[in-house]
Order: sequence, then structure tokens, then C-alpha cells
Amino acid sequence: MTVLGIDPGFATIGYGVIRDQKGKKTPIDYGVIKTPKELTFPERLVLIERGINALIDKFSPDEIALEELFFNTNITTGINVAHARGVIVATCYKKCNKLFEYTPLQIKQALTGYGRAEKRQIQTMTASLLGLAKIPGPDDAADALAVALTHLNTNRFSSTFGIK
Amino acid sequence: MTVLGIDPGFATIGYGVIRDQKGKKTPIDYGVIKTPKELTFPERLVLIERGINALIDKFSPDEIALEELFFNTNITTGINVAHARGVIVATCYKKCNKLFEYTPLQIKQALTGYGRAEKRQIQTMTASLLGLAKIPGPDDAADALAVALTHLNTNRFSSTFGIK
Repeated sequence: MTVLGIDPGFATIGYGVIRDQKGKKTPIDYGVIKTPKELTFPERLVLIERGINALIDKFSPDEIALEELFFNTNITTGINVAHARGVIVATCYKKCNKLFEYTPLQIKQALTGYGRAEKRQIQTMTASLLGLAKIPGPDDAADALAVALTHLNTNRFSSTFGIK
Repeated sequence: MTVLGIDPGFATIGYGVIRDQKGKKTPIDYGVIKTPKELTFPERLVLIERGINALIDKFSPDEIALEELFFNTNITTGINVAHARGVIVATCYKKCNKLFEYTPLQIKQALTGYGRAEKRQIQTMTASLLGLAKIPGPDDAADALAVALTHLNTNRFSSTFGIK
């Protein structure tokens, strides 16, 4: 089974693709989609859609795991990310209706057993679980691999996007 | 020229279509797209995309005007609306790249000359400018007509989605 993990963002979207064969987890690819500041807001959203579509077409994931929106202190950034995340969720769902979401807390608990783990601990655990010699980068790509791993290590029917 | 006005939302999206012929403004259609609560979050976003596409295909607007996101006190609702608005902006832009946005303040000023006008005043002015015998409803549809009218009554190059 192939899982695509996505760390939603507006300027930078992290992605990570993991194949699970009988419990052996292999990272297939990871990286980021970037939307240049020089483009307009609508152009950047359309670019995000194209990037996500290209990833899904390339890797044909069986399931997709997204990090839930974490609203930090910068509300303008948060609103932009929510716009982008709407595009990401709709784009994914049209191609793969097995869509799951995890909060930062769920990711920390799934990977380290500890809800207040530091970012570095999560990254170290991600590298270890995937047999990588060093921590994958950039950070957004590592976060995307972490949410994909969380999905593979969790009861996968517990975190379907609920009825809202 | 035909302008499609949109009042973005998650559960209810208002729309209004106005044709301007040498300054004479005729309302062609107005109403709302609704996304049922029984659907999942991704399903509702995809439904919004389909609805917007259907409107654009039906009315072939030359330009589209959207109300800017107004973040009220309910942050959960605001985040859902931002997700939906991302889908709306991307969907519109792919079909019509003449996309404009207006703040509630700009709409009030354009239609009444007064930035603190009440909702009822905006609605009365909208009906009057369009030669409607009564105030159009529901509210979200009236808001969408108001943003389309604002666009037609404004220097239309001043409010293009900027570089962000």
C-alpha cells in the first residue's frame, strides 16, 4: 500500500510518499511544492492544485493523510493556509476518497508516544522508522513523512474526515 | 458585460449575476449554493467546486467579484469559510481570470457612500439599483448581488487580487 502524506501550506506544501509492504515501510519520495511570491493569490492556489494533482498522478497513492490545520498566532498566514488547504482537500478527494487527517498531537503520540515531543524528536523517529541515515529535509517534507507514518501506524478508520 | 458576484461561505454560498448594457444593470439570476451537513468536509468542498463551475458554465461571466473574507468572532466557522473560499477562488480563476475582491467596507461605500451602512440599507440600495420591486433574498444572494454591483460601480482595475 502506498500512502501520500501532506503538510498543507500556502507558500510551501510538504509531501512524503511511503510504501508499506507487509509492515516494511519504504520512503519513495519526499519534498515540497513551492508557490512563488511573485504570483497572485489565485495563481498560487491554482499552482497548488496542479502540484497535488501531479503528485497523485505520479504515485497513485491508495490513501492520503493530511495534517490538520494548526492555527498559530499569525492569523493572516493561517487564513492563507486555510485557503490552500481547502484546495488541497478538494483536489485530493476527487482523485482518492480515502482521505484522513491527523492533529499535531496525534502525530506526536503516534510516533513517540508522547504528546509534547519536540519537532526534532519527531524527525529523528521518522528517519529511524524509515531506515534513513539522516533526518529528511526540508522540515515540511519531514512533517509530511511523519503524517504518512502516523497514518500507517494508526487504526486507519479512526481519523476519516468526519461529518461536519 | 456580465458579472458574477459571489458571497463565499461553507454551508451557504450566495451568487448573483448582473448584466450591464451601456450602464443599464439587469439582474439575470441570484440564489445560493448549499452544502448539506450530512456530507463530509471534503464532499462539501467538492460540491462547492461543482456548483461554482456550473454557475460559470451557465452564465459565462466576463468578470467575477468576490467578497473578501471577513473574520468574525467564530474562528471555526471562519476556518471552514476560508477552506471553501480557497476552492472558490481557484475554481473561478481557472475559468475566468478577471477576478476581483472587495471588502465589506468597500461594498458599503460603493453602494451607499457610507462605510458604516446597515445591512438593510445595502439591500435596499441593491434592490433600487437593479430596479427590483422588493429586496432580493436570501441574504447571501443579496450580498452576492451587492458585490457584483460594487464591481460595476468601481474602477475595476483597483481591486484585482494583488500579489501576496
